[in-house]
Amino acid sequence: VNVSFLQELLNTIAEQGRQLLPRSLWNDQQDDIEALAKALISSRGEASGVALARRILNRYKVLDAGEKADFFGFLAETMRPDLGGVRQAAENFLTGPNDDSLRQLRAAVESPRQEFFRRLNLAPGATAEIVTMRGELLRQPKADQTLDAVDDDLKHLLYSWFNRGFLVLRRIDWQTPAAILEKIIAYEAVHEIEGWEDLRRRLDPADRRCFAYFHPALIDEPLIFVEVALMRETPRAIETVLKEEAKGEEVPADPTTAVFYSISNCQEGLKGISFGSFLIKQVVEDLVRERPSLKTFVTLSPVPLFSRWLEGLRGNDTDGIINEADRWGLRRLADPAWFEDPQAVNELRQVLLGLAAHYFLRAKLNDGRPIDPVARFHLGNGARLQRLNWLGDPSEKGLREAHGLMVNYSYDVKDIEKNHEAYANDGVVAASRQVRSLLRASEKAKTDTGSRLAMPPRIKSTMISHE
Amino acid sequence: VNVSFLQELLNTIAEQGRQLLPRSLWNDQQDDIEALAKALISSRGEASGVALARRILNRYKVLDAGEKADFFGFLAETMRPDLGGVRQAAENFLTGPNDDSLRQLRAAVESPRQEFFRRLNLAPGATAEIVTMRGELLRQPKADQTLDAVDDDLKHLLYSWFNRGFLVLRRIDWQTPAAILEKIIAYEAVHEIEGWEDLRRRLDPADRRCFAYFHPALIDEPLIFVEVALMRETPRAIETVLKEEAKGEEVPADPTTAVFYSISNCQEGLKGISFGSFLIKQVVEDLVRERPSLKTFVTLSPVPLFSRWLEGLRGNDTDGIINEADRWGLRRLADPAWFEDPQAVNELRQVLLGLAAHYFLRAKLNDGRPIDPVARFHLGNGARLQRLNWLGDPSEKGLREAHGLMVNYSYDVKDIEKNHEAYANDGVVAASRQVRSLLRASEKAKTDTGSRLAMPPRIKSTMISHE
Amino acid sequence: VNVSFLQELLNTIAEQGRQLLPRSLWNDQQDDIEALAKALISSRGEASGVALARRILNRYKVLDAGEKADFFGFLAETMRPDLGGVRQAAENFLTGPNDDSLRQLRAAVESPRQEFFRRLNLAPGATAEIVTMRGELLRQPKADQTLDAVDDDLKHLLYSWFNRGFLVLRRIDWQTPAAILEKIIAYEAVHEIEGWEDLRRRLDPADRRCFAYFHPALIDEPLIFVEVALMRETPRAIETVLKEEAKGEEVPADPTTAVFYSISNCQEGLKGISFGSFLIKQVVEDLVRERPSLKTFVTLSPVPLFSRWLEGLRGNDTDGIINEADRWGLRRLADPAWFEDPQAVNELRQVLLGLAAHYFLRAKLNDGRPIDPVARFHLGNGARLQRLNWLGDPSEKGLREAHGLMVNYSYDVKDIEKNHEAYANDGVVAASRQVRSLLRASEKAKTDTGSRLAMPPRIKSTMISHE
Amino acid sequence: VNVSFLQELLNTIAEQGRQLLPRSLWNDQQDDIEALAKALISSRGEASGVALARRILNRYKVLDAGEKADFFGFLAETMRPDLGGVRQAAENFLTGPNDDSLRQLRAAVESPRQEFFRRLNLAPGATAEIVTMRGELLRQPKADQTLDAVDDDLKHLLYSWFNRGFLVLRRIDWQTPAAILEKIIAYEAVHEIEGWEDLRRRLDPADRRCFAYFHPALIDEPLIFVEVALMRETPRAIETVLKEEAKGEEVPADPTTAVFYSISNCQEGLKGISFGSFLIKQVVEDLVRERPSLKTFVTLSPVPLFSRWLEGLRGNDTDGIINEADRWGLRRLADPAWFEDPQAVNELRQVLLGLAAHYFLRAKLNDGRPIDPVARFHLGNGARLQRLNWLGDPSEKGLREAHGLMVNYSYDVKDIEKNHEAYANDGVVAASRQVRSLLRASEKAKTDTGSRLAMPPRIKSTMISHE
Repeated sequence: VNVSFLQELLNTIAEQGRQLLPRSLWNDQQDDIEALAKALISSRGEASGVALARRILNRYKVLDAGEKADFFGFLAETMRPDLGGVRQAAENFLTGPNDDSLRQLRAAVESPRQEFFRRLNLAPGATAEIVTMRGELLRQPKADQTLDAVDDDLKHLLYSWFNRGFLVLRRIDWQTPAAILEKIIAYEAVHEIEGWEDLRRRLDPADRRCFAYFHPALIDEPLIFVEVALMRETPRAIETVLKEEAKGEEVPADPTTAVFYSISNCQEGLKGISFGSFLIKQVVEDLVRERPSLKTFVTLSPVPLFSRWLEGLRGNDTDGIINEADRWGLRRLADPAWFEDPQAVNELRQVLLGLAAHYFLRAKLNDGRPIDPVARFHLGNGARLQRLNWLGDPSEKGLREAHGLMVNYSYDVKDIEKNHEAYANDGVVAASRQVRSLLRASEKAKTDTGSRLAMPPRIKSTMISHE
Repeated sequence: VNVSFLQELLNTIAEQGRQLLPRSLWNDQQDDIEALAKALISSRGEASGVALARRILNRYKVLDAGEKADFFGFLAETMRPDLGGVRQAAENFLTGPNDDSLRQLRAAVESPRQEFFRRLNLAPGATAEIVTMRGELLRQPKADQTLDAVDDDLKHLLYSWFNRGFLVLRRIDWQTPAAILEKIIAYEAVHEIEGWEDLRRRLDPADRRCFAYFHPALIDEPLIFVEVALMRETPRAIETVLKEEAKGEEVPADPTTAVFYSISNCQEGLKGISFGSFLIKQVVEDLVRERPSLKTFVTLSPVPLFSRWLEGLRGNDTDGIINEADRWGLRRLADPAWFEDPQAVNELRQVLLGLAAHYFLRAKLNDGRPIDPVARFHLGNGARLQRLNWLGDPSEKGLREAHGLMVNYSYDVKDIEKNHEAYANDGVVAASRQVRSLLRASEKAKTDTGSRLAMPPRIKSTMISHE
Repeated sequence: VNVSFLQELLNTIAEQGRQLLPRSLWNDQQDDIEALAKALISSRGEASGVALARRILNRYKVLDAGEKADFFGFLAETMRPDLGGVRQAAENFLTGPNDDSLRQLRAAVESPRQEFFRRLNLAPGATAEIVTMRGELLRQPKADQTLDAVDDDLKHLLYSWFNRGFLVLRRIDWQTPAAILEKIIAYEAVHEIEGWEDLRRRLDPADRRCFAYFHPALIDEPLIFVEVALMRETPRAIETVLKEEAKGEEVPADPTTAVFYSISNCQEGLKGISFGSFLIKQVVEDLVRERPSLKTFVTLSPVPLFSRWLEGLRGNDTDGIINEADRWGLRRLADPAWFEDPQAVNELRQVLLGLAAHYFLRAKLNDGRPIDPVARFHLGNGARLQRLNWLGDPSEKGLREAHGLMVNYSYDVKDIEKNHEAYANDGVVAASRQVRSLLRASEKAKTDTGSRLAMPPRIKSTMISHE
Repeated sequence: VNVSFLQELLNTIAEQGRQLLPRSLWNDQQDDIEALAKALISSRGEASGVALARRILNRYKVLDAGEKADFFGFLAETMRPDLGGVRQAAENFLTGPNDDSLRQLRAAVESPRQEFFRRLNLAPGATAEIVTMRGELLRQPKADQTLDAVDDDLKHLLYSWFNRGFLVLRRIDWQTPAAILEKIIAYEAVHEIEGWEDLRRRLDPADRRCFAYFHPALIDEPLIFVEVALMRETPRAIETVLKEEAKGEEVPADPTTAVFYSISNCQEGLKGISFGSFLIKQVVEDLVRERPSLKTFVTLSPVPLFSRWLEGLRGNDTDGIINEADRWGLRRLADPAWFEDPQAVNELRQVLLGLAAHYFLRAKLNDGRPIDPVARFHLGNGARLQRLNWLGDPSEKGLREAHGLMVNYSYDVKDIEKNHEAYANDGVVAASRQVRSLLRASEKAKTDTGSRLAMPPRIKSTMISHE
């Protein structure tokens, strides 16, 4: 593969803002975005698509909130399939169901918005702006369900365009341009980065790694990134990862354990199009190649909904999950500084760990999947719930969200596929003996099959998605 | 825009052949491509998609012709929408036509092949292989119409993936890697390149340019390229373009005319997905910026079907296009060396130019578009038929295809959109006075409206396509 | 020119730390740096130079201060020309002065250190380490004059290696890697950069520029950089440059004036090898090309020795430069907050400007050059002293060094050569009418020829140097 | 190390042809190159060096042969040290030999040409032109010994500038730009490349490698390159290297032997500045890293002077090297087609191999080094003469130069330094038992010490050189 030619080749992308001919269009004072949008999917759009697309995007940028809402409404109402045409095609199909009538039915149901967005993408730099546009669409009031169809089309297109085969993985380090690094600071969603020095501590030491996916048409923007620490054991607390001093130039001799301690999606406009599973697996593979001493790949993950779940349960414990001893221990949480009180820590430890085991292994959403979204992500990727870590994150956020609890998920190459399938098909949560042993005796009795999915967790089989 | 970071970023693409975890799959001796294909769109494909996709592609490569035909048949027969499901959804829609039933109908008609090919693209390097696969699909016997549906899906996906917004324009010159240059030699479809020295004459002199579109996922492969000569007047014959000696280091002072004398599509697997219109317009814009003295942008183009059309007409001239004088002149064509006989040349000149004017301006396909495919391409882009050039190409191929005729199409920025619309909506052929004047007096009387399209030329409004 | 190939080509430099064969040497526990140095210039160094050079550099790095001093002493004492040989060659030359005896004399006087350092540079990455070594050599106690000869050799070599023809100019902006940017923060010597946000204000706004020279063998290290503001008039105070808010994305329409407000040398080890003149002239040229509206190129410069000079003069004013009125006004300086007292400011203004005019135009070093080192630099480059700016820099540093004074030097392309020659040959200070008018009447009488150089300012004609 | 930043950084080099300010100089119609040269080393050159240097180089390019000779004469005669000054400095040194008088003597003997060429290099792109200039200087008639001093200065400077630490090694393959590849074709000096297809056979197959050194200031020009074949045994004939068909995509499983079968210097203007030793050693190291199965590193080398030496010996064999049997066998050489005559081949084999052993091991130049220049190069690098190959190259050139003989030199990492030192200090030729066994019995008796160098082979200890 010819790398250097590619490099030169890509320089052209730099010419964002270019607009193709005819320039004359630029003097055209037409600024009605709806008229422009209609022109783009008309015959005129075939001749002057690039220029029209650029004008629509420029116009969109300066719309105010109300005008944007109107524009989305226009897309929803006007750029929809012709229902009469669909009816006709549906009837034809039912009369004579064959390849031809099926093709016509498919053409009839395809929304003109798809072609609208494809043509919008003719303008250089458009892809980033379309992603931004979807972000803004998603922030429209949920009540307006007519916009769902617009999002269906946009998401379908972006899912196709941001196919993993088009993504490129890049290491982020201290040689990365500042313009990218400041986005890493801004997008870090798990453990806030407090400035350039903090960033440096996460990127520059020889035992740290950060990787991100990029798309060639969005070169300034990471899509998702993961932060990794190379260690010699699985950490129990985030402090051991974040607060240790950098150890000079060299990686600790023969690190055995790669710890994925933060993974952040960056683009609101790509919501529902998941890259995380690919990213983790590719990073595992790259790290194995770089440092063959690495044998263990684990996360150190937050438990974002544990406190909220527990609070709900305490208010309405119909199944009697919380027993008397629990209730006595939990009173300690009333003291906001409980974690500094050895007595309280001691009393709460077993209570909270036991309830957390229930939270992960027994409590489920209506569709049979675990309550915890981070758990759903890693289990869906084929990871195993490895360990519950008492007071792994005693920060304000860690206490508020999870009473300080953190967990390790482990990625064991030989089990990934098996775990994924058991989870996807039957809702089985792969968990270590340590985690299972924390369940109360009464609960252990219940077999796993008891947790069979009420409904299969995959709702859209065509979308590899994690929310 | 951050070019250098991008450059580094793209290095990763170089790692073709990578396969993501789990490696265990590689020892799996499963080599039934249909079983693998089914696995890819199943739950297993969600966990191990990258590896499965790579295995399918590797397996595909070693199939023999019969096995490939079987595989295409499998895709056509098995990976199709469930007709029962479509029927149900169509009935539901007809009962209650709304956004929801429309969405369900759309989901029901979408072919599982779409997701199959999207997942196939997870494997690094897959895009090129999928394009190749479509090329091979197109070479299957036409009789097998069941394969049309497979092609519909593939073409739809490639049309979306190869959106112009993702393409990058690169100048091809003597600094370009040999691996790309040898493809330019191989793909040149208009005026054959006879080796490296001939190639050099087209790329290296200061008054020559060559530009190609590339896609970031196909970095070794030009998609389409155009060869340009910077001159001081519109050439009448290909010889003045190809045979002139390079004139040292400098561009002739202030070239006024950019001549597009060859444009070649490179990828059979992207047939029907047109880049030519974008390429020409972008190159015009780049050249204007580089050399502001350029005012005229013309092609020097072949007329590939003129001889064949004329031969057909001579056999069956129901409308009496060919008059007596014509017939007398045309007898000269019987001598294969007529173009070396001044007398013959003299007699044929007006006869052939007049008939050629008819060929371009009056003779039409059933759908109202011109017979000449090159004319359809340039006129569809908004160009104007500028000049018919007598004996512009007296090569063996030029004589065989067009009795030596060549034409210039001109791209005049301010008329492109107007020309395109008149052509697209009404089939009007924009032509210069010179061309019109070559029509016989009797034909000139017919107004242009007489050539209104019987059918609109655009068949699929969603495809910007030129065949 | 073939950029992309070069880019790939340079990747190899990345392999710092490589050592060439034989590896066996690495197990050799020889760590006596003097023995290694002798080996390097012996026959053994011809076979294993790369490896020996790497070992010497590695060993040097871990020497303590005393050991380094010893090593420099070794270079001074041991690696010197053989004086007997020089004597012999000198006598031969005097006996028969011809090309041959001259060549032998030249060979005899060349120090073996030159070859030692050239061979040291065989090791990849060595150039940076040799520059560092010279920095440490320059920090040795001045008393040790035997080290001067070592520095002569090193400087001679670096002067040749860092020839401007090998340097590359790069714009520094927000796309520059963080590893380079943090060096810009560290090396800024004129107006301190207070952190990443401050840096961003100097690099990122559309009306700011920063350029640096790099050497291909020192890719991580800027050699010198200049910060520029694009404005519409020549600024009188640093505050107008540094404190103005960024003005959005666009450069102010048609900037007319490029202001060089900070220029910093970065490498102590390249002291005496000046890049500043080349840098300014190349940046002027690049800016003119980028923005043709730029017509004026000026600095806004500090006056680092004005306060010190004035203090000396007040203690010992043998020529009666300071008159009674001056003396009365200068009493105001006793109040450290004088610049906030309008009365004091008013009284001091004319006094200090008049003395500053004297400082620049009449006061000279023994060799006839101006006292002010920044003035020597810009005047030596052919600039003109354009304007004295009262209270241009009322920061603590500005007040301490120059009682708040700043000056503009202007670079006017058509006068550069003339100014340089008048300055270099006759010590003439090119100054505007404004500056000259600030001289007292009595001093204006003195002609410029009165300031003719006592000695020509250029001491070594072979070194284009500014200290 | 920051590769991508470097890549961008180097783009600037592309701006060849740039000239720095002042542009005014360009309108100056001064075209007397000698006047310009004097200006360049004067004070004017300090202000306008870049522009002056560019003008001199442009002027030089259009000089005719006679004018160039005049210009070299000017450099020799006029730009020389002032002999009176040298005399004065020599006398001062003899009176008081110390660091100071030595420094002054060194300054006095340094030729102003050195500074002239350094300032010439200020112009972008100058380095390549200076190298060309030296090439033309070397082609001046040898009789003109006054030019030797000019070459001394140029070579000294180029030796310093082209220090191995500044060179970059690049693999040359089918991805390399055509502009570089055509230079490989042109510069191949050992086994002619017959066109692009032949070139491809040497670069593209998976078992072929080609590496070149480049200098960052000469990015279009390889300095030296080596062609390598990865094999499973040491080849005896060039045909086995050059004529074998490429074996598909994969390197033959586990190649054991890297064969350096061609090494070519490219720049006449860098004559005497040797890169070959560094190149071979770095390539060995890179190959070992890439393919650990490689254990043997050998050349397959020509013997360029064997025929000429033998012819001379036959005419004047004072030492009786050629015995009766030899003489009888050698008569066969009279038949130009002897190598196709099995009888002749048979008779000549032992005769020629025995004489070749003598040629390599016993015949010496006056200075004690071997006659064969290729032998001097490899032995000087520390290689061992491994094997004489009968009819290794039966091409016209191979027969003419060496009666078809080829040899293998082997590079064995652990012996390189030892071999080099024995050769450099004592003229000992490291040779295998096979080669020694070919010596006649009478000669074997002579000990190696018998071949001690009459003079040490290294003439200039400061130049790592191979002619």
